[in-house]
Amino acid sequence: MLAVSPPDDQRFGLARHIVLPGPLALDGGASLSQIEVGYETYGTLDADASNAILICHALTGDQHVASNHPRTGKPGWWARMVGPGKPIDPARNFIVCANVLGSCMGSSGPASADPVTGTPYAMRFPVITIRDMVRAQALLLDHLGIWSLAAVVGGSMGGMQVIEWAATYPARVRSAVVIASTARHSAQNIAFHEVGRQAIMADPNWRGGDYYGQAEGPSAGLAVARMAAHITYLSEAGLTEKFGRRLQKRESVGFGFDADFQVESYLRHQGLSFTDRFDANSYLYITRAMDYYDVAEEHGGRLADAFRGTATRFCIVSFDTDWLYPTSDSRAIVHALTAAGAKASFVELSAPFGHDSFLLDVPELSRVIDGFLRAGL
Amino acid sequence: MLAVSPPDDQRFGLARHIVLPGPLALDGGASLSQIEVGYETYGTLDADASNAILICHALTGDQHVASNHPRTGKPGWWARMVGPGKPIDPARNFIVCANVLGSCMGSSGPASADPVTGTPYAMRFPVITIRDMVRAQALLLDHLGIWSLAAVVGGSMGGMQVIEWAATYPARVRSAVVIASTARHSAQNIAFHEVGRQAIMADPNWRGGDYYGQAEGPSAGLAVARMAAHITYLSEAGLTEKFGRRLQKRESVGFGFDADFQVESYLRHQGLSFTDRFDANSYLYITRAMDYYDVAEEHGGRLADAFRGTATRFCIVSFDTDWLYPTSDSRAIVHALTAAGAKASFVELSAPFGHDSFLLDVPELSRVIDGFLRAGL
Repeated sequence: MLAVSPPDDQRFGLARHIVLPGPLALDGGASLSQIEVGYETYGTLDADASNAILICHALTGDQHVASNHPRTGKPGWWARMVGPGKPIDPARNFIVCANVLGSCMGSSGPASADPVTGTPYAMRFPVITIRDMVRAQALLLDHLGIWSLAAVVGGSMGGMQVIEWAATYPARVRSAVVIASTARHSAQNIAFHEVGRQAIMADPNWRGGDYYGQAEGPSAGLAVARMAAHITYLSEAGLTEKFGRRLQKRESVGFGFDADFQVESYLRHQGLSFTDRFDANSYLYITRAMDYYDVAEEHGGRLADAFRGTATRFCIVSFDTDWLYPTSDSRAIVHALTAAGAKASFVELSAPFGHDSFLLDVPELSRVIDGFLRAGL
Repeated sequence: MLAVSPPDDQRFGLARHIVLPGPLALDGGASLSQIEVGYETYGTLDADASNAILICHALTGDQHVASNHPRTGKPGWWARMVGPGKPIDPARNFIVCANVLGSCMGSSGPASADPVTGTPYAMRFPVITIRDMVRAQALLLDHLGIWSLAAVVGGSMGGMQVIEWAATYPARVRSAVVIASTARHSAQNIAFHEVGRQAIMADPNWRGGDYYGQAEGPSAGLAVARMAAHITYLSEAGLTEKFGRRLQKRESVGFGFDADFQVESYLRHQGLSFTDRFDANSYLYITRAMDYYDVAEEHGGRLADAFRGTATRFCIVSFDTDWLYPTSDSRAIVHALTAAGAKASFVELSAPFGHDSFLLDVPELSRVIDGFLRAGL
């Protein structure tokens, strides 16, 4: 076990990196001989290692939950939820967030060096699943000496990991918070991801994935992928309220192909800035993992069978304007939990921001999570 | 006036092409010195030229309403609506459908030769609007000796043209049928189009639009644009029913990046086959025209002012699963028509196919159009 950062240092927002020994057997049949994990911790693990909360991040998220992003300098993606006096409080809990397997912020992924060849895996990295991500997190927690989690919490793809945690390691999860998520990727979800993948793979600079060390990567394709996905993160009403048909610079339309409308300029910026912080091959692998995600299919076709006999308490939260993983997806999870006899709370919150509501200023979300976590103490 | 096809031949599904003299003054300030129009007619114009119905096609549609497409060999896009015994019947009406200005099926567009230089306009073609498309159609009807239209009918972007017809030439339109359409493009509509344009323009084979005569055009970018747009034409429930998570070829997922799911294979096919029949620059120009479309803005900010004093009868049809131009968009049109004192019928139909419902097997749509058109005879 090769500890790169000292595991006993538990200051607020400590960025860490570790190489864990494998092999990690993957759902696809391959295995990884070792696993790198980039992660951050907040707070202090108590004497009986019982106060840990694992936070699971979304598709393009990372371990920098409440500390500034090392590349962009921006505040952590969930700083409103994690911190002193926040619902997930390092004064009370030892908080862990790990970069998911397949990503590009310190955990093993296509940009990592294949230990056999010493060169980047690129598309030779094995295809992974959400459950594989969870297995890698479990290895990290083993290393940290954490067997039982006070809670696993996540939104969007983070919520998928929470569900896989509860289904794969039920005895290790005391509470599970699943926000704006689903138990299976729908045809429409897959379709949007496929557009993004095709945009990346159509970029000649993608070079079959072997663009590492080249002057140019597939940033144009990655930007288009991000733009398409970004639309699905926002509500139609939210876009209308934020941008409507307001013009970018002019009194009237310019009759050309520059970004005339504010929404165009915004989307272009979202696409471009994404390419500064994310690896295109990681985007391929993680979207693929999400598309393969179908918890019922992993359990013989019945979602309830994923949760039989569980003692985990669940809190499922959806947003009324989320059309990516709509409330009906959350309801399906709650139905299955109920059918399995699990303890499940379900809240649909009203928020104007669409799927991205879980990241934005929705005070009710903070209150729900705070109350649910406190009740489990 | 240079009539390329004999204007007196009115056989069923006759494909025609004409070059009309300009100048045609465009909303953007430019003008076209002459206008090519590819069009088709069905049926016979009666002695007082009063039985003509103009059909307006959608973004990637064409004049081949009910005859086989000359490139793909596929049946016309609205063969279920137009033909003997159909709601729009050549036994009763003289039916005209013209390829829109900016398109690539015989009407002037970026692939056309600039008469000044003799080489393709490419991105030197002037930016056009939906109203410009309608002005070009009006010139064609002038040439055909048709002043008053029994009806103008169209779905999606075709419906936008119908609204512009009624607003720009109210005295020439006796009945107007607007299906699955809107009076303004929303921020989300613009956002999806911008993704498509960026996908095309990111393709190195686009070459700033000057790809005509090159070995390769921006077909990869155009395919991605089509894939993204295609998702918006279908309902989430329709995609689930048609494809769900069914696999393409295997018993189980392949853990790779081939098209594992049927919906991926379908989307890829939609993207690729589109590039055989459509010009990428036309896609840029027509999506731009749609984004600029805002009928209220053209009339001082009040949609009702576009229709004051009109004698046109209107039929507005929406579909309950259309999330591209949802029923609320149609309702806004009906509100404005009512406020303007116009005769307006409004029907929301239930159909599972999303926006594409106007092209698909929805018997109720045929009954509504048939009944509305007959009542206006």
